[in-house]
Amino acid sequence: MSDFQRNYELILQEVRTALAAVEVRQVEAFIDELLTAEQVFVIGVGRVMLSMQAFAKRLGHLGIAAHVVGEINEPAITAKDLLVIGSGSGESVVPVALAKVAHQHGARIAHIGSNPHSTLAAITTVFVRIPVKTKLNLPGEIDSRQIMSSLFEQALYLFGDAVALGIAQKKNADLKALWRWHANLE
Amino acid sequence: MSDFQRNYELILQEVRTALAAVEVRQVEAFIDELLTAEQVFVIGVGRVMLSMQAFAKRLGHLGIAAHVVGEINEPAITAKDLLVIGSGSGESVVPVALAKVAHQHGARIAHIGSNPHSTLAAITTVFVRIPVKTKLNLPGEIDSRQIMSSLFEQALYLFGDAVALGIAQKKNADLKALWRWHANLE
Amino acid sequence: MSDFQRNYELILQEVRTALAAVEVRQVEAFIDELLTAEQVFVIGVGRVMLSMQAFAKRLGHLGIAAHVVGEINEPAITAKDLLVIGSGSGESVVPVALAKVAHQHGARIAHIGSNPHSTLAAITTVFVRIPVKTKLNLPGEIDSRQIMSSLFEQALYLFGDAVALGIAQKKNADLKALWRWHANLE
Amino acid sequence: MSDFQRNYELILQEVRTALAAVEVRQVEAFIDELLTAEQVFVIGVGRVMLSMQAFAKRLGHLGIAAHVVGEINEPAITAKDLLVIGSGSGESVVPVALAKVAHQHGARIAHIGSNPHSTLAAITTVFVRIPVKTKLNLPGEIDSRQIMSSLFEQALYLFGDAVALGIAQKKNADLKALWRWHANLE
Repeated sequence: MSDFQRNYELILQEVRTALAAVEVRQVEAFIDELLTAEQVFVIGVGRVMLSMQAFAKRLGHLGIAAHVVGEINEPAITAKDLLVIGSGSGESVVPVALAKVAHQHGARIAHIGSNPHSTLAAITTVFVRIPVKTKLNLPGEIDSRQIMSSLFEQALYLFGDAVALGIAQKKNADLKALWRWHANLE
Repeated sequence: MSDFQRNYELILQEVRTALAAVEVRQVEAFIDELLTAEQVFVIGVGRVMLSMQAFAKRLGHLGIAAHVVGEINEPAITAKDLLVIGSGSGESVVPVALAKVAHQHGARIAHIGSNPHSTLAAITTVFVRIPVKTKLNLPGEIDSRQIMSSLFEQALYLFGDAVALGIAQKKNADLKALWRWHANLE
Repeated sequence: MSDFQRNYELILQEVRTALAAVEVRQVEAFIDELLTAEQVFVIGVGRVMLSMQAFAKRLGHLGIAAHVVGEINEPAITAKDLLVIGSGSGESVVPVALAKVAHQHGARIAHIGSNPHSTLAAITTVFVRIPVKTKLNLPGEIDSRQIMSSLFEQALYLFGDAVALGIAQKKNADLKALWRWHANLE
Repeated sequence: MSDFQRNYELILQEVRTALAAVEVRQVEAFIDELLTAEQVFVIGVGRVMLSMQAFAKRLGHLGIAAHVVGEINEPAITAKDLLVIGSGSGESVVPVALAKVAHQHGARIAHIGSNPHSTLAAITTVFVRIPVKTKLNLPGEIDSRQIMSSLFEQALYLFGDAVALGIAQKKNADLKALWRWHANLE
């Protein structure tokens, strides 16, 4: 077995362990929020933000109005909207600061992370725990042999895709018709 | 007079010369396209792209659906839409390639640049000439004592703001109400 | 005189008034910081961020290592670096939060804004006042007939370009050689 | 088994099938190029671009100078550099156009995709095939029950992480020291 094979097998196994530890009840509550919101905003930091952007882009393909905080044509958030925060620790400075602003505007807050007792907890409507290693080393966190926070970023990316696939099935989406919403200037 | 004062006076004078050379008839045709389009897409490269993004953001505040090519939630372009390209030479590789794609989808094309005889000319619906120095050194181009393509980028930025201000006046916009569309997660 | 001409003249006149109100002493202190720093980071929000990005891009062309906070390959900030914040009010949530983090890392802080008594003041190394209308309506602020915060964004954009031009002159830069650092994948 | 569980199991199984079909020899040639290049540039479109950005960010953490095409402080590409293109079909308009430009500058080209006979093939130094479903429906492509091009995007994301993990092991990287290069303004 080559290094490459050993490494992707390690990654896939760690991601499976992480996703298997997610409580289905939390996922369902999260999907309910996504389907009820008028607009969905996503935020995160670094590679976590990339996972959130991938999620927002897929939601858009499913006909859900999704925005990335900071994008050029970002609209105002209102009490009918949902802010989804990706943050393992729940303590990332910018997401926490903006979650407070969103909360003041009456928006609902979804937090996907590992730390159930973060600063965000007080204003979070729905929390989904992906209990993987953070810099905080919280009890119950799954360890990882990967570098830095890779496992959280990977698990978050595939979590988002599993949620999106579930929504597509719920909507009984004609999978070919989805391309209608897809950017064509590329 | 300090260096700083001498430099901003130089910049302001060059920008005024550039904008004074723009034909009003072309500006009016461009505004007509902006107001008729269902969605407006913008594209450019480097600092020119930043000027186009500033323009798109302001259009959004005026209630015009504006998108930046490449943004996460970019929708599909259709025959009801307008693609606005900022490119001095009209030969920037990516904008030209995507303008052709947009044209195939039936979208209208606006080009703001200095070169009226570029590759874009064949598919352009409306051209606005800001005749400032490009790397092509075309006849009729206004020279600049600034570095690189600064003058085109500056003139394009303020051109966009003058156009947006004109649209706000046309719409008799309640200037305070504009903040309603403004991002509030910041 | 057409609407377009009236509008760009209004803009240019307002920008001149704004830049003429900037204290040269503050500009020189700011340039000293830029030239001393090992790396320069810029931050802002919305169209102000676009003006800061245009500034960072130009600094890069002048051989100064400049980064936009949030970009993919953003390095760590250290005590040898400078964070430049564009914020009229000096109270924008994200820039203020990150300025505090940068300050904890020992970085120097430059603030370009209208409000000299903001939250940022306590940690700012050098402040450059562009005293234009903010939502705070501070004493001494120049009024504007433009929409929203356009004047601050425009003045900041051209301020950055005037500063960059001054640095190019100081460095006695061979203006043609600058293209060497310029992106060529475009 | 809940919908969520069924969906993430489907995703993980499809990704494993895709990565197992990658030829190790191609991966090793790709890693050689990454380690030899002076600078690495990445490009892609849409969610594929997000996977490439995640890869570039991780390379940066490993001390490899990595840039995203289009970023504000993008430097010039030279004959010592490598452009990595993510594109299932190898026909995405912008990546293909810029690959040609990079090739003219003498840069080496790596293509990660599903189509070995694309327009890119003529200028590609190293090709890594992830043979998953594209819109082209090429022979040998692994089918997917997911929506749109999800499988390619996911496989590309985890491929990049497996490669980065391998490089970290080769470099015998002190995993804790990696945080030194990590952005801290967040």
